[in-house]
Amino acid sequence: MPYVNIKVTGGAEAPTPEQKSELIRGVTDLLVRVLNKNPATTVVIIDEVDMDNWGVGGKTTTQRRQEAG
Amino acid sequence: MPYVNIKVTGGAEAPTPEQKSELIRGVTDLLVRVLNKNPATTVVIIDEVDMDNWGVGGKTTTQRRQEAG
Amino acid sequence: MPYVNIKVTGGAEAPTPEQKSELIRGVTDLLVRVLNKNPATTVVIIDEVDMDNWGVGGKTTTQRRQEAG
Amino acid sequence: MPYVNIKVTGGAEAPTPEQKSELIRGVTDLLVRVLNKNPATTVVIIDEVDMDNWGVGGKTTTQRRQEAG
Amino acid sequence: MPYVNIKVTGGAEAPTPEQKSELIRGVTDLLVRVLNKNPATTVVIIDEVDMDNWGVGGKTTTQRRQEAG
Amino acid sequence: MPYVNIKVTGGAEAPTPEQKSELIRGVTDLLVRVLNKNPATTVVIIDEVDMDNWGVGGKTTTQRRQEAG
Repeated sequence: MPYVNIKVTGGAEAPTPEQKSELIRGVTDLLVRVLNKNPATTVVIIDEVDMDNWGVGGKTTTQRRQEAG
Repeated sequence: MPYVNIKVTGGAEAPTPEQKSELIRGVTDLLVRVLNKNPATTVVIIDEVDMDNWGVGGKTTTQRRQEAG
Repeated sequence: MPYVNIKVTGGAEAPTPEQKSELIRGVTDLLVRVLNKNPATTVVIIDEVDMDNWGVGGKTTTQRRQEAG
Repeated sequence: MPYVNIKVTGGAEAPTPEQKSELIRGVTDLLVRVLNKNPATTVVIIDEVDMDNWGVGGKTTTQRRQEAG
Repeated sequence: MPYVNIKVTGGAEAPTPEQKSELIRGVTDLLVRVLNKNPATTVVIIDEVDMDNWGVGGKTTTQRRQEAG
Repeated sequence: MPYVNIKVTGGAEAPTPEQKSELIRGVTDLLVRVLNKNPATTVVIIDEVDMDNWGVGGKTTTQRRQEAG
């Protein structure tokens, strides 16, 4: 019955449907392997966060990407 | 002062404004009834999650819906 | 497949096991009634938050309770 | 390494990119000042929630705004 | 910069320190492999939820375990 | 009506009651200043996360602290 929430940047950096599927399968397999959890009740939710809405080091990701050129 | 977050699938399965209103009223009433909480400070947030972004059993909901035909 | 997270104050205000059970049943029934969701895959998680760790109006709940006398 | 999630109403009440940047900088500075945390690993995520999806007092924000006229 | 939150049941079912370490390494590696994310800024937080506080199918995990005998 | 969740490491690194109070006041003031939000309905919740349960760079904070000597 694990619940997993994965937050990654969206927009131009958003994962493709295939990558989302791979993340969901991968983290479900990980929980089976490490904790023997039941995959049928393992819930995984992926959130895509806009780069203006994600900050690290006191700056938005948009600002950081612009500064990184 | 309770805080409630309800995550459901969005897109074609998204709740209507009326259903969202009913969920908010219903969960607020539940917290009044069970824990005598003050409705005026009960916060309810509903998240609608894309079916590609919600996985159960190692598969996305999109995949599961397709397989269910 | 809904996911519901309920946060309430813990410590002296923590819900009893019976109240937690009632909250879980109540919110699951609400999602069946309003959105016809499958109760078997409806996940509800209750978090009990210490009163020092919950703030409203710029003050901790501990402070607010002391001021309310 | 703090993680901060700020949820505010979106739509017509959504913060501008400049306001988001100010929130990210402000909360990062606060964590440096109060807890001497490393800004370089302080993550801040802002969620903008639709007014139909945010309830207080058993009503959606949309309903509350309409009633407030 | 991904952020991952893993919620699993605690108490008698809580993961060991070694299992937590394995989950953190595994999900970080998964994000490197699938999305080429930087492990140095990948944050993983594991929450252990009491079995009275985790409900599925309208019942607490404690109830479900008792019924499963 | 903003909702803010601040997660920091707990245990030996846990904030004191005074620091929690300062964080709550500080982030509430920030939301008043930047977005003119009503402090009376601004909810702030602080989570203290065990160092075994918080991973960065594929390692738990416990491991990272030991390696940093």
